[in-house]
Amino acid sequence: MSDVLIQRIKELEAELEKLRSQLKESSETGDVEMSSSPSLNEDCKSDGNTGSSKKERKKSGKDRPFDFSAHPRRHVALRLAYLGWAYQGFAVQENTDNTVEARLFEALLKTRLIQDRQTSNYHRCGRTDKGVSAFSQVITIDLRSTQFCAGLGITLPENVDVSTKAASSATSELPYVKMLNRVLPQDIRVLDWAPVVEGFSARFDCQSRTYRYYFPRGSLDVVLMAEAAKRYEGTHDFRNLCKMDVGNGVLQFERTILSATVKPAQPQHASSTDQYDLFIFEIKGLAFLYHQVRCMMAVLLLIGQKLEAADIINQLLDVENNPRKPQYSMAVDYPLVLYNCHFEGLSWTQESEEGGFVLAALQQHWTQSTVKAHVLQGMIQGLEDRGAVSSNHCWLVEGSRQRNYRPLLERPCCESLESRINHFVKRGRLEREEGENGGEMIHRGKRSKHSNISSETPKQNMDSKED
Amino acid sequence: MSDVLIQRIKELEAELEKLRSQLKESSETGDVEMSSSPSLNEDCKSDGNTGSSKKERKKSGKDRPFDFSAHPRRHVALRLAYLGWAYQGFAVQENTDNTVEARLFEALLKTRLIQDRQTSNYHRCGRTDKGVSAFSQVITIDLRSTQFCAGLGITLPENVDVSTKAASSATSELPYVKMLNRVLPQDIRVLDWAPVVEGFSARFDCQSRTYRYYFPRGSLDVVLMAEAAKRYEGTHDFRNLCKMDVGNGVLQFERTILSATVKPAQPQHASSTDQYDLFIFEIKGLAFLYHQVRCMMAVLLLIGQKLEAADIINQLLDVENNPRKPQYSMAVDYPLVLYNCHFEGLSWTQESEEGGFVLAALQQHWTQSTVKAHVLQGMIQGLEDRGAVSSNHCWLVEGSRQRNYRPLLERPCCESLESRINHFVKRGRLEREEGENGGEMIHRGKRSKHSNISSETPKQNMDSKED
Repeated sequence: MSDVLIQRIKELEAELEKLRSQLKESSETGDVEMSSSPSLNEDCKSDGNTGSSKKERKKSGKDRPFDFSAHPRRHVALRLAYLGWAYQGFAVQENTDNTVEARLFEALLKTRLIQDRQTSNYHRCGRTDKGVSAFSQVITIDLRSTQFCAGLGITLPENVDVSTKAASSATSELPYVKMLNRVLPQDIRVLDWAPVVEGFSARFDCQSRTYRYYFPRGSLDVVLMAEAAKRYEGTHDFRNLCKMDVGNGVLQFERTILSATVKPAQPQHASSTDQYDLFIFEIKGLAFLYHQVRCMMAVLLLIGQKLEAADIINQLLDVENNPRKPQYSMAVDYPLVLYNCHFEGLSWTQESEEGGFVLAALQQHWTQSTVKAHVLQGMIQGLEDRGAVSSNHCWLVEGSRQRNYRPLLERPCCESLESRINHFVKRGRLEREEGENGGEMIHRGKRSKHSNISSETPKQNMDSKED
Repeated sequence: MSDVLIQRIKELEAELEKLRSQLKESSETGDVEMSSSPSLNEDCKSDGNTGSSKKERKKSGKDRPFDFSAHPRRHVALRLAYLGWAYQGFAVQENTDNTVEARLFEALLKTRLIQDRQTSNYHRCGRTDKGVSAFSQVITIDLRSTQFCAGLGITLPENVDVSTKAASSATSELPYVKMLNRVLPQDIRVLDWAPVVEGFSARFDCQSRTYRYYFPRGSLDVVLMAEAAKRYEGTHDFRNLCKMDVGNGVLQFERTILSATVKPAQPQHASSTDQYDLFIFEIKGLAFLYHQVRCMMAVLLLIGQKLEAADIINQLLDVENNPRKPQYSMAVDYPLVLYNCHFEGLSWTQESEEGGFVLAALQQHWTQSTVKAHVLQGMIQGLEDRGAVSSNHCWLVEGSRQRNYRPLLERPCCESLESRINHFVKRGRLEREEGENGGEMIHRGKRSKHSNISSETPKQNMDSKED
């Protein structure tokens, strides 16, 4: 009996070994580079850690007590770019550590730029979902500073005689961008930073957010899509074009879209009609609901395939006549980029060389993607030359084209807003109350997770979640 | 004791399960689709397995004895396309099972199209290396057939009364393409097949092979590269532009290049000077040496970066004056495609729908690659708009540009051919003999791995390895 068991154990161990090496291989091939910065050994001369030796600095952050109270702090905005394809989203999550924010906070702690997240006065401009990338994610936060003189957003340490330090007012600030990029993973980069006044918030002071969604023409009618996109512009109730997040306190769905366009990625070849041309759906708004852009894109794709008329947008925005969202899938994640978060009056400070490093790394990574795309295109061309014919199935959607398309307005609907509110009121997460002027007010219930839910004063830059 | 062993077994099984799902997850994210063919349950009506039920056919191949001798065989050519990025090369290897050929033979065995590899009369046109793709890999092999009448390449079964089967001469042949594509992995596809005369060989009867290497312009001088490439044309000794494989019996390095060009991937935009334009180095030859194309490309890239003059090619081909290869790295693997293998007089038989399925799957996969490339390009554009400047480092080469470039002819050299021959002669793998006319003949030694090594009759289509 033991022999049989021992044999089984040997087989299992061999199998495990094989799988482990396969797993190692496949995780190595998926590696994404956004950095070609020099060796980590290159030391950073203006680092304020004058009191510690280099060796000590390389120890784990937890081992060495660091006296944050001896240093000034300053309130800054950091501008980040990241490739979202390998992450479970931007925001920290309970069930996974594989988020952009988790990596960011590791870097901030490791570089001793903050003491901990809770006291860092951290705000983020938007939350991007799993698979979604960003070129201009902005966060505001208090970081350790070398500036012992008063200045924009600077808080001097208490119990420190700043007059003795005043001579070092000529000290340059810590090179935040370089320090963080050295320890961040390759596919997350700090692009630049800006000093900001205390109280400035990435979340509440953002003037507008711009998303881009990239897609190939295929057999889509992009002219029709461009015309249809305009219908999104203006202030509308977008409940039928998002994933309602009532449980998190999002109770009103009016948002303002400043512009919504569909344009070729390469404008210089605008007269081309090639199905392999790329287009960009670019949308600028004050703030966005959860999955809003991807729902808007999904509907545009249906219009581009001529499965729906452009007018479907007007109907979906008419929440009086269409109070409940029809069931449809949102567009896939990987083509979406939070391209710009706009703030007035910030002086973005770049650090010499850093921009060049990020550019070089992006160019190498772009090379890999585009070369593979061309290998595939060569094969596509070869097949077409031999007579293979494209179906008119949308290439962004996996699987085959559905045989019988069911118009949106004939489909089953999702729960209404009222029904969802009732659901949470029953569970004590929300409470109804008679408000002023006899209107109904809904706010946090006793069992709510969040402290700040009210449907009475909707502010468009106070999103709990974005796409 | 048994309890401890049983416990260990349970632990190992749990660990295995965990790894399997991780592996599945990571292979799904890296999953390459080349097929959108219908469900595997769709049965294939003209399958000659009339004697067995469907249930039996779905059992593992090993369980059910199959009488191959009752069926005709036919000699065919199969044309394959595969994306090499997830494989350790085309040819079966001892230390890994992750090769295109391994998957191919699994499929051939599973579909009962062959009994075993050894008796299948298998030849392949070329061997592609790890990471290298193919659009026209051709193999020749004997497959099970339904054709009981005499025909091109058909061998009738012995001891079977074919006259009773003659009525089924109207039976169509097995749908080889469909049968294999149903069981092959997504990134390996059979495109079509051709009946061939017995004795026809994918290896020896190939008229020419064409490779393509895709690369972005970046800061390369592509005009100079195009002019330089012409110097490869003609019959030359390419020992300085390959990896010598003396141990495997490759002892002479003369090869004929029919054409070598550098052209834009999109000819319609030929007047563009954009650094993000893609180019193709396309090279057609009778046969190629191991890593030859990648070495040729590496030298072209040095010329394009103006680190070497175009004349370096002439010098490397001048083996009298430069008998030993300077040390240099070959170009990376992923941009290389074995694009065409040319055979005269074959009637490639396509199966309806299969071409369309492969095309649709390639388009979806192309969409992923090109969308990601455009996301990256959008970020690159944004950085350039903010003043970031490209270095002139070649984007195909990882890492930073070397500070001091060392000209090829000033570098240390690899071993000479003579030295390598001596090495193997010492070990008994090769033997020297005085040949006719007083010349030296080198052939298989007593301890050689291969039976067919001789340097006296070089045939250009008898490569043991190709790039």
